Amino acid sequence: MNYPRRLRQLRQRLRRSNAVALLVTHLPNVRYLCGFSGSAGVLLVTPERSLLFTDNRYREQSAQEVREAEVVIPETGGVRPLLLAEMARLKGVIAFEAEHLSVALQEELFARRRGLAVRGWVERLRERKEPEEVAAIRRAVRLASRAFPRAVAHLRPGMSERGFAARLEYELRASGAEGLSFETIVASGWHGAHVHGRASQKAIEKGELVVIDYGVLLSGYVSDMTRTLHVGTPDRRTRAVYRAVLEAQLAAIAAVRPGVRCGEVDAAARNVLAKAGLGQYFQHSTGHGVGLEIHEAPRIAAQAKEKLQAGQVITIEPGVYIPGWGGVRIEDVVAVTERGAEVLTPTPKRLLHI
Amino acid sequence: MNYPRRLRQLRQRLRRSNAVALLVTHLPNVRYLCGFSGSAGVLLVTPERSLLFTDNRYREQSAQEVREAEVVIPETGGVRPLLLAEMARLKGVIAFEAEHLSVALQEELFARRRGLAVRGWVERLRERKEPEEVAAIRRAVRLASRAFPRAVAHLRPGMSERGFAARLEYELRASGAEGLSFETIVASGWHGAHVHGRASQKAIEKGELVVIDYGVLLSGYVSDMTRTLHVGTPDRRTRAVYRAVLEAQLAAIAAVRPGVRCGEVDAAARNVLAKAGLGQYFQHSTGHGVGLEIHEAPRIAAQAKEKLQAGQVITIEPGVYIPGWGGVRIEDVVAVTERGAEVLTPTPKRLLHI
Repeated sequence: MNYPRRLRQLRQRLRRSNAVALLVTHLPNVRYLCGFSGSAGVLLVTPERSLLFTDNRYREQSAQEVREAEVVIPETGGVRPLLLAEMARLKGVIAFEAEHLSVALQEELFARRRGLAVRGWVERLRERKEPEEVAAIRRAVRLASRAFPRAVAHLRPGMSERGFAARLEYELRASGAEGLSFETIVASGWHGAHVHGRASQKAIEKGELVVIDYGVLLSGYVSDMTRTLHVGTPDRRTRAVYRAVLEAQLAAIAAVRPGVRCGEVDAAARNVLAKAGLGQYFQHSTGHGVGLEIHEAPRIAAQAKEKLQAGQVITIEPGVYIPGWGGVRIEDVVAVTERGAEVLTPTPKRLLHI
Repeated sequence: MNYPRRLRQLRQRLRRSNAVALLVTHLPNVRYLCGFSGSAGVLLVTPERSLLFTDNRYREQSAQEVREAEVVIPETGGVRPLLLAEMARLKGVIAFEAEHLSVALQEELFARRRGLAVRGWVERLRERKEPEEVAAIRRAVRLASRAFPRAVAHLRPGMSERGFAARLEYELRASGAEGLSFETIVASGWHGAHVHGRASQKAIEKGELVVIDYGVLLSGYVSDMTRTLHVGTPDRRTRAVYRAVLEAQLAAIAAVRPGVRCGEVDAAARNVLAKAGLGQYFQHSTGHGVGLEIHEAPRIAAQAKEKLQAGQVITIEPGVYIPGWGGVRIEDVVAVTERGAEVLTPTPKRLLHI
């Protein structure tokens, strides 16, 4: 990971503002800038220095992980006094992450000095991934993909959604996943028409579609994939809806390349579904960036004006949700390359029936 | 769940302040006050009304879950304009949760009106649990406890910590857990001396102690338990350290009753370990409240002055961590009753060896 480059870019941003430092309180941003993966730490970046403030629990871990920053750990007591002392040494305005600092902490840290509320400074740097980051996402995506057929081999009609999620999560953890990147969705039959159907105690029955949407964390980076399968032989309508969603997904992927507006990628999927008479059943956006977090820029949404850039890594995940009938969603992770797109998810996309 | 009582108490608090309403942005607090368990929603409580603002995804769920509040869902667009319009109708100061409102959102919502930053209003109500809440925690604790022997039956020397965590989490999910209440800790041998040892790829070897600390979510309430087991026959030192930690844990539980200061409960555990010559190896606090969140008031820590009250539910979890050698921690969930304490965790505490 290229920490020196990241800090250099952040300092360029700092110089264009009227602030003398940035206080980084969002943990994924802290990790991005210095490698620290602990659950408590703030980073203070000045034009000359980068200081990670954390506590005794992370002495060993920070020594191993942190790059390009000095680690400050109080011998006793909390981190706050040391941080305030360091801030007091800086003359001028200190910028802070407005979206990631509570009013309570602002009152404590900026009681006696001016702060500058800024948004997305580090997130914007994170948007274009370094090759090493794409490789980390690819590893997470592959781990998650490999577990899929192993879990599906255990799926039987009558199994609860939560029971299947348990099996899937077991395969993921047993393959070395550090954790899940979000709550696993397993939504069968009518439940599949709920876009965010957390795995419930509902039994998965014969004749139902099952939407399975899940992801892992590996070395801090996330995966995200959705497959929809059918229990028993699918009927004509099921096959037709599935085919339309798959065509929409492939059309959106085909539209991905640097310079294309995110809204055009979204429209590519949406147009296919509209032509199939299913437009009204696709009510969410087509995708989002992934990286250290599960939802990052850019948003692949209707009318989104931002242009794709090489190095971005996004999901492409159109879906159709018909109330009372069920849902179909197909999702891959796609890297934007200089020449177009590379689909990182290796799992096949034909309609699987068990 | 007694939502009318909760709202009544919150409104009493409101009357004692100079605010005309409280904006509740912390999701566990939203859930506590109206039952809504979705991942996006804010609650506005005035002396007469309680309004939940959420979005289209939660139309059905909010209709099922919400009690004692009107649900406001925009037909199109975001929640923000509706919330601002409702806030604009209130004359006077609106209180907000300073610890759970970002500066960015404060700038948006309180750009043109005065806000009052308050802390812990709802958290304080949540501290003493209703009988139905204690019952919910008990169900979560029992589910987690039942899974423990089933997972341990699969533990073999050479298995990775993460592999064992995968098995344990599988048993939890397959028993119906909605999720984990925190990242499972499995820390073996030298790794066990790290208090927060996330399950790693380290193999669990013969002759090692294994600290296993985990919890589930069930109906929104959490469990939290730790057991330490030994791979192979434990030697004299291992048995002695284990016995000291167990005695410390039992002494702390024996000290629990209404009116006792939290610091005294902590001291009860600490004194046993000090007498055993292990005081220096017990560097964290003895416990914490649990409920809708994994860390709630009260803190069972050295010098904590707060007095225990019937209805509180806390963990008791002393430990000993000897660098290079390993760790032992034993943790139960304990309900403070009118007459003393009830241990909710049924799992035995003698030193298990496999």
